[in-house]
Amino acid sequence: MNEDALVAAIAEIAGSPKAVRIVVGIGDDAALWQPSRSHRSAITSDMLVEGVHFTRELMSLEDAGWRAMAANASDLAAMGARPLLATVGIGMPEGAALDDIRSLYAGLAACARACKLAIVGGDLSRSNAMTIAVTAVGEVRAADAKLRSGGRAGDVVAVTGALGAARAGLAAAKDAALLAGDLRDAALAAFRRPSPRCDEGRFLAASQNVDAMMDCSDGVSTDLDRLCAASGVGANVDFVPVANAADAAARALGEDPEAFALAGGEDFELLTAVRPRAFPYVARRFRARFGRELHRIGTLRAEPGVALRGKALARTGWDHFARAGAG
Amino acid sequence: MNEDALVAAIAEIAGSPKAVRIVVGIGDDAALWQPSRSHRSAITSDMLVEGVHFTRELMSLEDAGWRAMAANASDLAAMGARPLLATVGIGMPEGAALDDIRSLYAGLAACARACKLAIVGGDLSRSNAMTIAVTAVGEVRAADAKLRSGGRAGDVVAVTGALGAARAGLAAAKDAALLAGDLRDAALAAFRRPSPRCDEGRFLAASQNVDAMMDCSDGVSTDLDRLCAASGVGANVDFVPVANAADAAARALGEDPEAFALAGGEDFELLTAVRPRAFPYVARRFRARFGRELHRIGTLRAEPGVALRGKALARTGWDHFARAGAG
Repeated sequence: MNEDALVAAIAEIAGSPKAVRIVVGIGDDAALWQPSRSHRSAITSDMLVEGVHFTRELMSLEDAGWRAMAANASDLAAMGARPLLATVGIGMPEGAALDDIRSLYAGLAACARACKLAIVGGDLSRSNAMTIAVTAVGEVRAADAKLRSGGRAGDVVAVTGALGAARAGLAAAKDAALLAGDLRDAALAAFRRPSPRCDEGRFLAASQNVDAMMDCSDGVSTDLDRLCAASGVGANVDFVPVANAADAAARALGEDPEAFALAGGEDFELLTAVRPRAFPYVARRFRARFGRELHRIGTLRAEPGVALRGKALARTGWDHFARAGAG
Repeated sequence: MNEDALVAAIAEIAGSPKAVRIVVGIGDDAALWQPSRSHRSAITSDMLVEGVHFTRELMSLEDAGWRAMAANASDLAAMGARPLLATVGIGMPEGAALDDIRSLYAGLAACARACKLAIVGGDLSRSNAMTIAVTAVGEVRAADAKLRSGGRAGDVVAVTGALGAARAGLAAAKDAALLAGDLRDAALAAFRRPSPRCDEGRFLAASQNVDAMMDCSDGVSTDLDRLCAASGVGANVDFVPVANAADAAARALGEDPEAFALAGGEDFELLTAVRPRAFPYVARRFRARFGRELHRIGTLRAEPGVALRGKALARTGWDHFARAGAG
């Protein structure tokens, strides 16, 4: 059973929310509700477990805290929501020292500050493995909220940055000889201190020409397939923006750089579907605002499935249950 | 280091929320923010870990799911908030079967339905021990929100029900011979399927005569001390409403029933401080509305500390870090 099948089974048991003010329930980057007529609030949760999502050999507890907070901020960004607050549940093994908690929290708090999320509470517990469960709430104007399901055949598919750097960082953390100098630094930073695209998400959400948005936390090959399934379309990918560090890491490993980048999760770039006529305008404004490319990677099509230059593209990203992925 | 000291250390690292719309941060049953001028939203998180908070010998996974959701609903009740929605993070050990997840979710969903919480999302992960991290959001009118810190010397201290039944249930689950018949059933139900006092919380919150409120999740001896510390007062306890099952269990174990009940956590009754002149009126309306007593257990006093009929009362309830408690 893979993760999507498990989520579908759970959504069935949980039942569809009856409350009229729940706008989006299980299945998108975040859920949406309506606290008052003109507002939408977004909520998302992510759990990181030591030994599953991180090990102290590959990153510090401070980095792990940063990543846990970043994953939530990225989910809010993917809805177009402005970050507001977060709660933090921590499970600590018996031997955990106060310094461990301090380090973890320093990372959580640093990312929260960077994303303007106020940490307002949480829970502490004993556990077998260090466990970090973050829930974040954001806000978005009703007209701006972007779902995975809004994509239309013909839309341009774009990503907010080059891909694969976080995966290169994981590989570089495991093998100190893989990369050197600036490439190694960039890879490790992308892996340990990823920057959620909060401002980019709000910018894109404010555009009427953006039909759908989600974050690439599990790799574009997996996440684009999810966006397509939710939107009832397929996609042709004809360009893959490979991060420099990913290109170097893939070559050093003897792998194809594009495949490496498409499988690389946790880049936290946003994946978005934009009306084709408006795309050049949106991309130009994006570049002017952020000094970076909004990379066009392909188009949505009526025919289901995702293809890379005509060849079917399998999901190669992270699935927590099917098998270990690349993230 | 005990749990309160750890929470204080964390609050310092997390920093005080700068966002003007955060009304209450770390340290109360739930945090409060202001989504719009007239509204307050409340958010709370609780984490349950197999082997720490529950074992399958003592309760089913369905019960564990119920309790995880109930703990969150109770925190909302303690703020006077109406339950709205919840997210659920689940960490599953490698060998977990789909049926395990179904059972856990059936319990989560049953309690969510009972409390009118819509489950809107969450996260799934591998972990070493079955871990359930629930976050719940509720809403409360600005004037109704009740904090731990509102207690005043002279207030009547009251609880919404008799105490110790959940602790009796834990003891009965461990020792099948301890209780029999209806007492055993009542004890096990209190332990495995506790009822958060959502309606009672909203009723009390709507009264201007209620100064402070919190839930008794860690035992009255511990939680009343927390309410007093937050309010800058102390308390005299002169009556302990002991649940029938707790009385029977304590006697069977050769323990003092009052001490047994005061140490018993996870009853999820609400602990409240009410203006003394208004208490008879509030208690009469409470009885008329719920068919149950609002038990007067003592009064708040200027002198710090908590005393039971003149003798200092130590914290004997659950502390996740100092030592194993009774909960």
